[in-house]
Amino acid sequence: MAFLNENYLKLQAGYLFPEIARRVREFCDAHPEDAKRLIRCGIGDVTEPLPRAAVEAMRRAADELGKRETFRGYGPEQGYDFLRSSIAQHDYRDRNINIADDEIFVSDGSKCDCGYILDIFGDENKIAITDPVYPVYVDTNVMAGHTGPARPDGGYEGVLYLPCLAKNNFVPEPPQEQADLVYLCFPNNPTGAVASRQQLTKWVEYAHQHAAILLFDAAYEAYISQPEIPHSIFEIPGARECAIEFRSFSKRGGFTGVRCGFTVMPKSLLAQRSNGQRLPLHALWHRRWSTKANSVSYPVQRAAAALYTAEGREQVRWLIQHYMGNARILREAVERAGLRVYGGVNAPYIWVKTPEDVTSWQMFDRLLNELNVVITPGSGFGVQGEGYFRISAFNSRENAEEVARRLEKLRES
Amino acid sequence: MAFLNENYLKLQAGYLFPEIARRVREFCDAHPEDAKRLIRCGIGDVTEPLPRAAVEAMRRAADELGKRETFRGYGPEQGYDFLRSSIAQHDYRDRNINIADDEIFVSDGSKCDCGYILDIFGDENKIAITDPVYPVYVDTNVMAGHTGPARPDGGYEGVLYLPCLAKNNFVPEPPQEQADLVYLCFPNNPTGAVASRQQLTKWVEYAHQHAAILLFDAAYEAYISQPEIPHSIFEIPGARECAIEFRSFSKRGGFTGVRCGFTVMPKSLLAQRSNGQRLPLHALWHRRWSTKANSVSYPVQRAAAALYTAEGREQVRWLIQHYMGNARILREAVERAGLRVYGGVNAPYIWVKTPEDVTSWQMFDRLLNELNVVITPGSGFGVQGEGYFRISAFNSRENAEEVARRLEKLRES
Repeated sequence: MAFLNENYLKLQAGYLFPEIARRVREFCDAHPEDAKRLIRCGIGDVTEPLPRAAVEAMRRAADELGKRETFRGYGPEQGYDFLRSSIAQHDYRDRNINIADDEIFVSDGSKCDCGYILDIFGDENKIAITDPVYPVYVDTNVMAGHTGPARPDGGYEGVLYLPCLAKNNFVPEPPQEQADLVYLCFPNNPTGAVASRQQLTKWVEYAHQHAAILLFDAAYEAYISQPEIPHSIFEIPGARECAIEFRSFSKRGGFTGVRCGFTVMPKSLLAQRSNGQRLPLHALWHRRWSTKANSVSYPVQRAAAALYTAEGREQVRWLIQHYMGNARILREAVERAGLRVYGGVNAPYIWVKTPEDVTSWQMFDRLLNELNVVITPGSGFGVQGEGYFRISAFNSRENAEEVARRLEKLRES
Repeated sequence: MAFLNENYLKLQAGYLFPEIARRVREFCDAHPEDAKRLIRCGIGDVTEPLPRAAVEAMRRAADELGKRETFRGYGPEQGYDFLRSSIAQHDYRDRNINIADDEIFVSDGSKCDCGYILDIFGDENKIAITDPVYPVYVDTNVMAGHTGPARPDGGYEGVLYLPCLAKNNFVPEPPQEQADLVYLCFPNNPTGAVASRQQLTKWVEYAHQHAAILLFDAAYEAYISQPEIPHSIFEIPGARECAIEFRSFSKRGGFTGVRCGFTVMPKSLLAQRSNGQRLPLHALWHRRWSTKANSVSYPVQRAAAALYTAEGREQVRWLIQHYMGNARILREAVERAGLRVYGGVNAPYIWVKTPEDVTSWQMFDRLLNELNVVITPGSGFGVQGEGYFRISAFNSRENAEEVARRLEKLRES
């Protein structure tokens, strides 16, 4: 008798984005005329062309594969040295952060890494997750059997939720309780909040005191505009002994369809066996990649490496400025509409309080029907996201300006 | 206290191919002159350029991403419709096999899929694995905690091994015992054996009698030359209710560095909960992809789809003929050297009996030192692989002919 993984049955119906897609489809079918003016600020997907340097690197790599002399088959499972060393040098060592080339593991994206990372951890770990949160952290833990059943409010038994509220500026304090694995994401998706050096230091101290590990998602670090905000958890002393970092080229280089990201796994990071012995996780993570993957497509790795060239860096800078220009336009429009707004300064997401007594999904439906604008309901990101919605700044300038104009109507109504 | 996954510690030191790489490196350091004439027939990696149709499709897709009007971000997590429907049509429906487009799940390779698939199964399943076998099936089950500790012979407690021996033509009969998940790979890596319609029918009957699921790895189906041999498990009546198929573009289209494969998950395949209720696995597998991945790189999917065009199919045919020509040359050379040889007719692998009292690794060292040829020791594939070695036909014609000449020396010695 083949048994299925019953943990999957605990998952709440409909992962957030498929549910949004369903409602949008329904709306478009019912209102084909209005559908033509629909603007999507929901899913955080980039809109601008891939940087020229990446396109050309990918074309060159495809040509290399087309010739016998330059053909390459299986690459090193952890990624090509040319990419690992570019990352370690430019993103870390150039910023005085001590990361070795072989502490970089190239992957097909941060979403994937967030799931993969659980492979090397035991099932007995207590999981702490911010709320609201990127749903993948929670759902992958549900699927791995690290939680109890779903509660009526949409949360899961057995998870320690860390509320991110306006009153803590959406950056939670370390809890009193023991947690073994703590998911932190800054700049934050969905709230756009960032954590200060002092706040991150508190978390590193917590991790040391509790022998916990911080799973630090820095997928949006390229959007940080304020110079005092840390870009990496490894800027904090002691983090090499308690943290893993996730990064992505998706938002930084427009790679959402190209697929490339990486994890930083310090060799000094230990976790324990049930007998108390502590061992480096690096060896397990290395083995995970050797056994379960054959690395990332060679042309994709070349494209990612091209983002570190002078030309690539300039093009990435342009992309970030473009999206952050949208963020400013949208943020100001929401303010003018009389709503309370957060984020959008160090992150491409604007986090907006709904008017009193209006739920997140009600706001979603209203914006869809009245303004023909798709946003993401905050409650889709967790219990504490209720009463908020997220506007993504990933759009053309024209669309961002048009959305800003439409948002004015909220003021009138 | 963060706990690690202790199952990783059960894994035998050194995954096979890294161990081969280590020995080859040592040899090259010690004998730099001989190293220059080294020919690698070890790891089953392709050598010929990527088909022109795939190169051009990838270049075009990169260009599309470089323009705003044709840019694409996140794709559907299960793969683009254009690729899923090409696969279902050409590989299945054109051969009168009833497979729907949405039963195809595009991935970054079969090695990955072999690990991913365990996500949706319970931990209580009894695993049956052929011996010798592609090490990934075993190791991913060890990592998932589906086995006991390693035994002195290199096998793992708790796994039901199905011996593939010369006397059963390397195709095992279904066992007497209950198994819940059965890994089958035909054409086989490493033995090059194929299963007849009658043999596969017995396995489908076994699966129905035991409510077991067959995990059928058909990564080498394109190499089948004898018309009576099934290419897909779904050619066998009843397989839609008891099998999942894995396929890859790696060996068929030279995609080992490009990374693309797929699984076929029939909607009629059920597995059970602990309370006995039976549910379709398709929904779980779909959810797994939605939550844990963002599909495969768009240019890679375009490259894979190009293999189904008239031009692509002609180029794939050339590739297969090239490698199978090598297989014939190598097979005949081994026969002339007086060794017993299997495989190489419907598969790019030649499986050779070592001379009496010579172990697989001894033969590896001898071929490395005396002939400067790298092969794969059979014992690396399992207990029953001891006394055999695998020669890969993935090479240039020139190298295959040179290896054939060198093999003559085995006769003299």
